[in-house]
Amino acid sequence: MNQPTLASLAAELQVSRQTVSNVLNFPDRVRPETRARVMEAIERSGYRPSAAARALRNQKSMALGLRLSQHRNGISGTIVDGFMHALVKRADQRGYRIVLFPASTNDEEVDKLVGLRRSLAIDACILTDTWYGDSRPADLQREGVAFASFGRPWDGDDHGRWVDVDGRFGAMEAAGYLRGLGHDRIGFIGWDDGSPVGRDRREGWAEALDLSDADADLLTVEGEDSVLGGAEAMAALLERGADAAVCASDSLSLGAFTEARRHNRRGVSLVGFDDTPISRTLGLTSVRQPVDEAARVVLDMVLAQLAEPETQFSGVLVQPDLVTHEPPDFLTD
Amino acid sequence: MNQPTLASLAAELQVSRQTVSNVLNFPDRVRPETRARVMEAIERSGYRPSAAARALRNQKSMALGLRLSQHRNGISGTIVDGFMHALVKRADQRGYRIVLFPASTNDEEVDKLVGLRRSLAIDACILTDTWYGDSRPADLQREGVAFASFGRPWDGDDHGRWVDVDGRFGAMEAAGYLRGLGHDRIGFIGWDDGSPVGRDRREGWAEALDLSDADADLLTVEGEDSVLGGAEAMAALLERGADAAVCASDSLSLGAFTEARRHNRRGVSLVGFDDTPISRTLGLTSVRQPVDEAARVVLDMVLAQLAEPETQFSGVLVQPDLVTHEPPDFLTD
Repeated sequence: MNQPTLASLAAELQVSRQTVSNVLNFPDRVRPETRARVMEAIERSGYRPSAAARALRNQKSMALGLRLSQHRNGISGTIVDGFMHALVKRADQRGYRIVLFPASTNDEEVDKLVGLRRSLAIDACILTDTWYGDSRPADLQREGVAFASFGRPWDGDDHGRWVDVDGRFGAMEAAGYLRGLGHDRIGFIGWDDGSPVGRDRREGWAEALDLSDADADLLTVEGEDSVLGGAEAMAALLERGADAAVCASDSLSLGAFTEARRHNRRGVSLVGFDDTPISRTLGLTSVRQPVDEAARVVLDMVLAQLAEPETQFSGVLVQPDLVTHEPPDFLTD
Repeated sequence: MNQPTLASLAAELQVSRQTVSNVLNFPDRVRPETRARVMEAIERSGYRPSAAARALRNQKSMALGLRLSQHRNGISGTIVDGFMHALVKRADQRGYRIVLFPASTNDEEVDKLVGLRRSLAIDACILTDTWYGDSRPADLQREGVAFASFGRPWDGDDHGRWVDVDGRFGAMEAAGYLRGLGHDRIGFIGWDDGSPVGRDRREGWAEALDLSDADADLLTVEGEDSVLGGAEAMAALLERGADAAVCASDSLSLGAFTEARRHNRRGVSLVGFDDTPISRTLGLTSVRQPVDEAARVVLDMVLAQLAEPETQFSGVLVQPDLVTHEPPDFLTD
């Protein structure tokens, strides 16, 4: 690659290297006619200031670090992938690229982020998949690495640098929708892994239906996040007299759907989470998470920190919406 | 962030800046006892040579560019996502990060890659989603940007810098499997978008079954890559007396499966492509693409080019394998 440089441009134009540099960085210091002549030559030559040189000068790489989320087997694994797609597009609009890397643990993630920041390969980072006792925000603050998180801190200090989807609200909407259809025993099919996201959704379901703790326990079945898990949970709920369910994921909802059909219980209604492609094509109603809005907000937060490190933030909950679908004819005939 | 530098380390150790630099870059030039003392201080301090400084010095960023693949609606969109996950992990093992960016067209992708390379933000790049008349390889070669492609050149010059999955072989395996189950009218459900990948699979199916052109046309139904598309295609194939089908994707296979069940045709057998999570959970047999192997080979190719730009390559076809599944009890009772 025969790459033009400040020096080669300056030689070609018979001006000083400093003049070319000034046109790029401090155009007001250069006489308008010289500025025009230099700009024209710069554009014609395809010259671009080296990212490496720029990074050394302003310590900016125009890149944000992101740990590759685990590739889950379930169909619900798509939500963080969907967020990543939205983030890459939104970041591009602001001139930033996303630097992807894997990590097996949160500590490894923090180590890699600190290393990337110290070597000026990233300016800041985005966290996802927050959990109870998550030490990453405190670790990154101590190391001076700017960040914002898709996912709230579920306990501990609220650093405010987060955006999350209000799953509790989504579950309330789902339960209200099922009650509006005329159902009066509406179960909850959740995860048995203690996930804070799952607990939040369960609370929303119980609150919307004004259930006693005993009723909520009776109408909750938790298992693994899979189609089979959903089928098993639905079998248990049918025995307990439920005729509808809010499901913590579309995998569970799909399993519940097949189980209800196996028993020829066509009157059973279900709502899943994430409005995944499979639910859309099978016509299963679901709670859609606004990942594009979440990506936009998280990016605003992290870029605001880069502009002004002392900025104070408050966490932002974005609201999901219920997307109703009817099963297509080929499934219901 | 209080970051140690060559200068601060040199001052602390009372040696010259050049000595610290030599320990890192030319350790043989430094006396062993000094080397040990400097190394110990470097490790203790957490000093890391700046990526930006290193990039300026050796023009290496230890990063590879990758265009974010379109987030498809169908469940088959996961194959390039699967490849990306494998690539990020494999690249990490070789010390490389993946720089993700979006692009609306191939030309925009090339422009961005050339810009990233010129600014030393990447060393090379990986292409995906190759198609007929793909101008990216020639464009990148002209611009001197090293690349390797997941996906073969379907026409034009064979630059050899590619790895692809042998879909023709996969479709042959699928057809042979269905014939082995005793089926004698085995259809093909494909895409109507003229995709080279789809044509390749159809050729494998027709060859394995030794079909005349007329029979192959009669037993082929093409439509959009969706569950509904698969259901409509299966309805047409059932009318033409088919009792099995090779499907170009798991979306199509799932649609075909639901349509066969709607007609209570439990003897119908199907094979899809990509062994997606939904097919695994519903027990639909599928052709699995070895994305991890593809990521490994593509990375070997691109790093070999960086080490020796004149290396000659030959394209590599990796072989998929058939993964048989039985529908779980909850679907077949």
